[in-house]
Amino acid sequence: MPTVPNDFLAWSRERQGLIESRLQELLPAPEIAPVRLHAAMRYAVLGGGKRIRPLLTCACGELAQAALERTLIAGAAVELIHAYSLVHDDLPCMDDDVLRRGKPTCHVEFDEATALLVGDALQSLAFQVLADYRLSDDPAVQIEMTRILAVAAGSRGMAGGQAIDLAAVGATLSVPELEFMHIHKTGAVIRAALQLGVRCGRRLDADDLQRIDHFAKCIGLAFQVVDDVLDAESDTATLGKTAGKDARMDKPTYVSALGLAAAKTLAAELREDAMSAIEPFGKRALRLRQLADFIVTREF
Amino acid sequence: MPTVPNDFLAWSRERQGLIESRLQELLPAPEIAPVRLHAAMRYAVLGGGKRIRPLLTCACGELAQAALERTLIAGAAVELIHAYSLVHDDLPCMDDDVLRRGKPTCHVEFDEATALLVGDALQSLAFQVLADYRLSDDPAVQIEMTRILAVAAGSRGMAGGQAIDLAAVGATLSVPELEFMHIHKTGAVIRAALQLGVRCGRRLDADDLQRIDHFAKCIGLAFQVVDDVLDAESDTATLGKTAGKDARMDKPTYVSALGLAAAKTLAAELREDAMSAIEPFGKRALRLRQLADFIVTREF
Repeated sequence: MPTVPNDFLAWSRERQGLIESRLQELLPAPEIAPVRLHAAMRYAVLGGGKRIRPLLTCACGELAQAALERTLIAGAAVELIHAYSLVHDDLPCMDDDVLRRGKPTCHVEFDEATALLVGDALQSLAFQVLADYRLSDDPAVQIEMTRILAVAAGSRGMAGGQAIDLAAVGATLSVPELEFMHIHKTGAVIRAALQLGVRCGRRLDADDLQRIDHFAKCIGLAFQVVDDVLDAESDTATLGKTAGKDARMDKPTYVSALGLAAAKTLAAELREDAMSAIEPFGKRALRLRQLADFIVTREF
Repeated sequence: MPTVPNDFLAWSRERQGLIESRLQELLPAPEIAPVRLHAAMRYAVLGGGKRIRPLLTCACGELAQAALERTLIAGAAVELIHAYSLVHDDLPCMDDDVLRRGKPTCHVEFDEATALLVGDALQSLAFQVLADYRLSDDPAVQIEMTRILAVAAGSRGMAGGQAIDLAAVGATLSVPELEFMHIHKTGAVIRAALQLGVRCGRRLDADDLQRIDHFAKCIGLAFQVVDDVLDAESDTATLGKTAGKDARMDKPTYVSALGLAAAKTLAAELREDAMSAIEPFGKRALRLRQLADFIVTREF
């Protein structure tokens, strides 16, 4: 297994700090009415999370020589979509979970109705952030970014993946069916994180966009395979969310479909495939490579 | 009370038909996977509703000499936001309602998790629609429209209004407090419907935008006052949704704050105020005037 070098840890810690500040600024201040809703939105977004999606946006932005400020704004928009999806996913009518990022979930800390509105308002905020005048000199690119994120979040992306996931409880899925589910559920927004990062910088040609998209698809799936492995192997304290839940809820996973060893092999193969796709970028893709390694070697 | 002339009924019926077709096209086809989610999204949006918000968008578009096709797309985006808010508002953790537009609510016809995802996906679709290349020649205007709708839907608009509404159950609100709640809950999206319609056409100067905005604020409040009157006076069959619900849920309304007669007077005053604001537009504001009359005289 690859190891994650120290300079990457320093880079990602710095970026995580900047992303946190940007989210702090973009979220409504807690003293603005309605104060309970704003407190709950901040609770759901701030002070937790690996921020993998905005880190991918930043890494892709570096590849396209984008200004850091722009990639932080685009990355924050993606993270707001991700945070909203976690709040809604944890609701009693969905996964009914009580622990997230080591804290009580939003509906446990506040209440169900507030958590519903938190998710709704975070989604609106994500699109408001993409309409930020600081994001781009070219409004046509901003519109393209809006379209990318809206499609990734919607019924043919993340929300659709959740619907497929709901229908799969208790079912046995083949590996291609699992892949179809995860390409929607997790893959679409990870892919959008990378596509937005690229569009913060210089225009890339179609071949280069294709390379990044292939990397995105592989890394999105690898992320989910590793999630399934961690859910099966790790404990709740390490994960900061309820471990062993997929098996208890009778959800099909890569571990249930392939077994633990083969799932780990699949993650390693997806990493290799991802790396090959971005090989032609050379040093410009350093951070993307390191993130791919982080995604497959992470322990939480 | 003013009466609504026949030519307005013909105009609004034609527009309603066009809006319905546009929504049909913009919603994912029912045979596209995930089919249950797409069926539920179509159930929640199509075949019902007065379409008042997109009619306001069309009327404002006419005032600004906009192409009809553009106002229909912008109006459809606003209607998708409205439809998502109804689906989430009817959920058991919110108003827990079983009847909407004369049909079982989305979570009754499908299930709670699906209804949650329907609302989420409809919101994403609204922003995807605003990124439609047919909406404008000027992507900067499209970005402005995205910002307007995102702010109107978010925590300082509609979602915030819902949070204030939740907190108000069982409380006695003053008329200014009621106004604050409704400016957020219903007013923000009605105002956005008008602001988007204007931006589909020729650029108006700041004074004209101000006039339309004043009209929007008055008509948004009048809409809510009339809603409260109808909830108190009408029956479930006429409304197509559960009547008398506000009182039973101990929600503050204009009727509970002012009494029925004074609430009706307030609606009439708001109509007058709205009409004065757009008086300088002359004939160009014909449809806006007729819509204002429809909003205060409607019986459902």
